[in-house]
Amino acid sequence: MKDNKFSSSGLPDSAFYRGKAPMTKSEVRAITLSKMRLLSDSNVLDIGAGSGSITVEAALVANEGKVWGIERKLDAYEVFLENKKRFERENIIPILGHAPEDLPDVSLDAIVVGGSGGMMNEIIEYAKQHLVSGGRFVVNAITVETAYLAIQGLKGADEFRDVEVIQVQVSKGRNIGSLTMMEALNPIYVISAELK
Amino acid sequence: MKDNKFSSSGLPDSAFYRGKAPMTKSEVRAITLSKMRLLSDSNVLDIGAGSGSITVEAALVANEGKVWGIERKLDAYEVFLENKKRFERENIIPILGHAPEDLPDVSLDAIVVGGSGGMMNEIIEYAKQHLVSGGRFVVNAITVETAYLAIQGLKGADEFRDVEVIQVQVSKGRNIGSLTMMEALNPIYVISAELK
Amino acid sequence: MKDNKFSSSGLPDSAFYRGKAPMTKSEVRAITLSKMRLLSDSNVLDIGAGSGSITVEAALVANEGKVWGIERKLDAYEVFLENKKRFERENIIPILGHAPEDLPDVSLDAIVVGGSGGMMNEIIEYAKQHLVSGGRFVVNAITVETAYLAIQGLKGADEFRDVEVIQVQVSKGRNIGSLTMMEALNPIYVISAELK
Amino acid sequence: MKDNKFSSSGLPDSAFYRGKAPMTKSEVRAITLSKMRLLSDSNVLDIGAGSGSITVEAALVANEGKVWGIERKLDAYEVFLENKKRFERENIIPILGHAPEDLPDVSLDAIVVGGSGGMMNEIIEYAKQHLVSGGRFVVNAITVETAYLAIQGLKGADEFRDVEVIQVQVSKGRNIGSLTMMEALNPIYVISAELK
Repeated sequence: MKDNKFSSSGLPDSAFYRGKAPMTKSEVRAITLSKMRLLSDSNVLDIGAGSGSITVEAALVANEGKVWGIERKLDAYEVFLENKKRFERENIIPILGHAPEDLPDVSLDAIVVGGSGGMMNEIIEYAKQHLVSGGRFVVNAITVETAYLAIQGLKGADEFRDVEVIQVQVSKGRNIGSLTMMEALNPIYVISAELK
Repeated sequence: MKDNKFSSSGLPDSAFYRGKAPMTKSEVRAITLSKMRLLSDSNVLDIGAGSGSITVEAALVANEGKVWGIERKLDAYEVFLENKKRFERENIIPILGHAPEDLPDVSLDAIVVGGSGGMMNEIIEYAKQHLVSGGRFVVNAITVETAYLAIQGLKGADEFRDVEVIQVQVSKGRNIGSLTMMEALNPIYVISAELK
Repeated sequence: MKDNKFSSSGLPDSAFYRGKAPMTKSEVRAITLSKMRLLSDSNVLDIGAGSGSITVEAALVANEGKVWGIERKLDAYEVFLENKKRFERENIIPILGHAPEDLPDVSLDAIVVGGSGGMMNEIIEYAKQHLVSGGRFVVNAITVETAYLAIQGLKGADEFRDVEVIQVQVSKGRNIGSLTMMEALNPIYVISAELK
Repeated sequence: MKDNKFSSSGLPDSAFYRGKAPMTKSEVRAITLSKMRLLSDSNVLDIGAGSGSITVEAALVANEGKVWGIERKLDAYEVFLENKKRFERENIIPILGHAPEDLPDVSLDAIVVGGSGGMMNEIIEYAKQHLVSGGRFVVNAITVETAYLAIQGLKGADEFRDVEVIQVQVSKGRNIGSLTMMEALNPIYVISAELK
């Protein structure tokens, strides 16, 4: 098999520069990207990009589109820049700033929210204005409250259809001698919907 | 967003023709495909293809490669053919038959096992002979015993490295009036490794 | 081992009369009862008793106390009565009615909520008035929204301490020939707190 | 509510002295004890007692019976002794030693295996000899291999019936400001059976 460092899907977590920024684990990244239903020319926005792992994979799939990634914390943003550089993705546009005020005024095929900073309703409003018809809105939530707010916001908005809520829990085997001990990763809610 | 019926990733379960054949759910499909690390020209084999949902998505990603899919049950095989047709994938090569005796004698970048038919050891032997160096071997197992056999077989084979065992459990929200009841899908083990 | 039909803990689901009433599965029942921290003379209220499986087990542990069980649906209530009869628990007091209006005006050591009927806030108010100091309040929730409301209600009430939120997901092996296929039961939130 | 420090069920993890010994978490303890179906006069053996949390809770339920607890690691054994002392359980008989050679030659109503030390088959043989008819055998396993061995051993032994395999995964809410982040505990297999 060829070097797949720059392939379009399935990057292992170890492919990314980590720093101390939170990183969506590969399995959740795979599911999240699948809910975004990207095409090669999709324009994408990643809100709360963290280490940029989802931004990078989105930029690999949507290699003829643009992928904006916004992150408000400087240390995570620097890790994000490092990963942009590592994967040589010219179609990534990093933004150091806050949602919703620093979000770009562009037309988008998909928005993914990795961190809402307490601004879920404002982000949903932004999505209504900036997603194309049929555009995908995907939220990763690690708290019950964020999941609840995303569900309420999307189910309550006439502009969205096909609101889907899933929860994913992955455990990973760790070798203990010849034994395989299953270690749990934290569960995550993935809430998605489509703009009418 | 454009019609993504033939897009390279993220097909919802509803995109497929179902029949009564077992179908890997979209979230597990996304994770499984990510473990296969496909490139556009990968050659792939899906053992126990069932309804062909993984075969089809692999064929969309590896659109310049070939994807063999083998299934031993006729009714599932017919569903598989129906899905090949629906997605117009000329690069899918369906095989009605049994592993290992009916497996193709070709060089492969990735092998995925959705059903081993009790032949895990023989399939691992086949993989050693037919995977390229760096090629990926991925098993989806729904039983403890199949997971155990795949783990033992791969850990015990010097030819493989990076044996990874994960278990994935997804729950999906069902609307009960204004409430979102979480319904569990069965957990699945995803065991993967790389040929040295 | 002696006939443990009337033992104080660990009744299998098959011990209960089922009908069509929803029944908390044995593993969740065990966890729920453990969060209630019952003593032999505890007085307990089960709101949304369903088939009465938690009521019965609580009545076996608190065999010198009283256990009220309220259920609003007649068919479930009849299953509940059947189970009261089967386990010969004279200390169970069944109520056919609605929360909060039909809840008993008694002092309680533990309240468990299996179904809130959309009245979580009213039930929490009732709990503040009727639990003794140190009394336990335990909610089983199958929807994100009910979990959210219970968490908010308890965290927001100065009267409670030690608010704990857990989510439990159990899978059960089903024999497929010599193989053990893991089948998932729906995840459940168990939210508990103690009255100051 | 009365001081329930010495109550028969539902001790929180914080009630125990911890040291560095591994401790079964309260939710898994509750399920494990429920599978043991203890009566007040049950005689019990805990193999791989660790910190003794299951031993202690079993001794509280089976307060007229005896509970042997065996642990091979000295530091864990010392934590176990500390917990025996803390809960003033005279009916606990601690053993520092190895299974199967140091297991007591007594008749038992229930055996729980928290750690098999690679001796699952030998322990199952011991159980056949020492459990009363109807006695319960319960294994907690954190590795795929131990689960597999317990399942095979019990299903393959004519002496046992009602072999049950479950897997439990619990997540626990951690407060992040006003939000509740769900943190996963490692999944555990609970395999149980009854001696004919």
